Amino acid sequence: MTISRREFTRMTALGIAASSTTFPAFAQAAPRKIGYCIIGLGRIADHHMRAIAQGTTSTITGLVSGHRDKAEKIAAQYGVPKGSIYSYQDMDRIRENKAIDAVIVCLPNSMHAEYTIRSAKAGKHVLCEKPMSVSVLEAEDMIAACKANKVKLLIAYRLHYEPFTLKTIQLIKSGALGSVQAINSANGFNIAKGEWRTQHALAGGGPLMDVGIYCLNATRYLTGEEPVAFTAVATSNREDERFKDIEESLSWTMRFPSGIVASCSTTYGAQMPSFAKVFGANGWLEFDNFNYEAQQIKGAYRSDRNAPLTKLDETSTAHDPSHFVSQVDHFTRCILEDKTPDTPGEEGLRDMQYIQAIYRAAGITMG
Amino acid sequence: MTISRREFTRMTALGIAASSTTFPAFAQAAPRKIGYCIIGLGRIADHHMRAIAQGTTSTITGLVSGHRDKAEKIAAQYGVPKGSIYSYQDMDRIRENKAIDAVIVCLPNSMHAEYTIRSAKAGKHVLCEKPMSVSVLEAEDMIAACKANKVKLLIAYRLHYEPFTLKTIQLIKSGALGSVQAINSANGFNIAKGEWRTQHALAGGGPLMDVGIYCLNATRYLTGEEPVAFTAVATSNREDERFKDIEESLSWTMRFPSGIVASCSTTYGAQMPSFAKVFGANGWLEFDNFNYEAQQIKGAYRSDRNAPLTKLDETSTAHDPSHFVSQVDHFTRCILEDKTPDTPGEEGLRDMQYIQAIYRAAGITMG
Repeated sequence: MTISRREFTRMTALGIAASSTTFPAFAQAAPRKIGYCIIGLGRIADHHMRAIAQGTTSTITGLVSGHRDKAEKIAAQYGVPKGSIYSYQDMDRIRENKAIDAVIVCLPNSMHAEYTIRSAKAGKHVLCEKPMSVSVLEAEDMIAACKANKVKLLIAYRLHYEPFTLKTIQLIKSGALGSVQAINSANGFNIAKGEWRTQHALAGGGPLMDVGIYCLNATRYLTGEEPVAFTAVATSNREDERFKDIEESLSWTMRFPSGIVASCSTTYGAQMPSFAKVFGANGWLEFDNFNYEAQQIKGAYRSDRNAPLTKLDETSTAHDPSHFVSQVDHFTRCILEDKTPDTPGEEGLRDMQYIQAIYRAAGITMG
Repeated sequence: MTISRREFTRMTALGIAASSTTFPAFAQAAPRKIGYCIIGLGRIADHHMRAIAQGTTSTITGLVSGHRDKAEKIAAQYGVPKGSIYSYQDMDRIRENKAIDAVIVCLPNSMHAEYTIRSAKAGKHVLCEKPMSVSVLEAEDMIAACKANKVKLLIAYRLHYEPFTLKTIQLIKSGALGSVQAINSANGFNIAKGEWRTQHALAGGGPLMDVGIYCLNATRYLTGEEPVAFTAVATSNREDERFKDIEESLSWTMRFPSGIVASCSTTYGAQMPSFAKVFGANGWLEFDNFNYEAQQIKGAYRSDRNAPLTKLDETSTAHDPSHFVSQVDHFTRCILEDKTPDTPGEEGLRDMQYIQAIYRAAGITMG
């Protein structure tokens, strides 16, 4: 290895894409590839599989699915042996498969805990989609199971591995905006009928769990602080079959120890393109950083009242699956070098605690 | 008059500037000009005076100021007789001045009630700046005084007379965005030390009273509904001398009867360029409509899921003081035609009631 962990982190912080394609030292050193078993073959699994194929640090060595036909097609595409295709019933047999080092849990939220814990018990490291679980207790159990079985756990907060997001965080940390006072953020969409995400039993909640969590997590990585007080208001059109047992829209505020107030909204009932605006004493910025595609930062700031204005207007050239690549490369490196992931189970647990606090403030009981 | 009130309203709704320069019928009919006495000669008075000078329906016929020198200069500029300059002590003498039909109250918030009521008692119509007062009780007293003295009262919600804002309202009303689910809005700035607006005794509150009121009022004109439930969180850095007795930042939510939730923020401690985003089932729009200068609408909507996307990206050519002109023209017309203004005292009273509810939700006592 010619690039140390510290240099790697610094490069990532500077916005240098950490994918292996722009990281030749990683390829040259050629440590063994980490083999991943994909659990659940829906939309998000496709992002992860394309990322693994595009990178050079990892490989797909197993699949878990309830649809054998679909799994066989995907296995052929990614060179997975037929013998490494499992059903949900027999997936515990991955224990005996030495080619599988880790799993990626791509299931509906309510299954994250069960399949994370079964995988940990099978001795496999776990990369689990967000939200981590559907309750605080489940999240705690998942962390405990991974610890007990000495496997690593990464929650897939992909934006923590996205260069433009890291650049935004650095800009704020550098003091460019002055003291941050407020953040506004929203993320939502008009969901189709029949999606599993509208079923409480599978999703554990509504848009807050699925897309609002991006706003919640953003306020934390943008401020570097943890929220301490919450208000929330939720509404649902119960005559709309999509919102029989989940919230339709939710707006909430979070107060942080320094006095920053974040104001966030999420919905499954409206077009709500994602954004976060950060307002500081000397400037502001806006970014639409929650999407899979190219991202933007706009804004303006001064180092002080009399300084010249610096205008921000940048669009990233990063496209899907670039930061999925960085994310899986990071987890592979954590496994190879025995390091704790940047977004461990504890990061997911905190969001579950805040989601619980937000739902409580809105008068909604979780789980 | 060749243009009826209905046509006038329609034209305004269509975004046709209602200033007299584009409204020749008004000038041709040449009813007598309405004479205005400006009470308080600060920044906002300057906007009103330039608007009167630019229009053709109204004229400045009196000034009330504590600074005789300043008042004389302004009187010379606008052709106001020296004998029509009053002090705050003797302003009640405007009763005898037949050239004064109405006043424009441009004083700090805490003086709005007193000078509105004194003007009403002097038999003059009142155009009063927002916020209408510093308490609900005062607002009620102002309305009662104007009724008792048979004079009209308009609260200066200038955006109700701004063509681009009216266009936005029409677009939403037309159903272009589908059913509106959520609104985000913010408006704030980093205030200078020593401004009267940071003194509770003069301002009656912090940024909510001054600039947050734009967000509050916008959620009402954008939805056509009245809010029914409130949450709020306020923070202040008490070590900052500007925030000894007012809130620094405030974020709040409002729920409307149809289920729309509005999420708003205001501050005196950060750069927070004004905006409102409206999220509907079929589309969204964003506008920065609270400024004095040219304004923008951006967004995208479909009439339904399968319809082609209509993109919005428009910038108004209207500049200060254009909508101040429309506003004073409207009040002049209301006086001449004995009509109720579009933004009467009751409009201001409602905002005072909601401001009181927001402050209560934030644990702040008003007044």
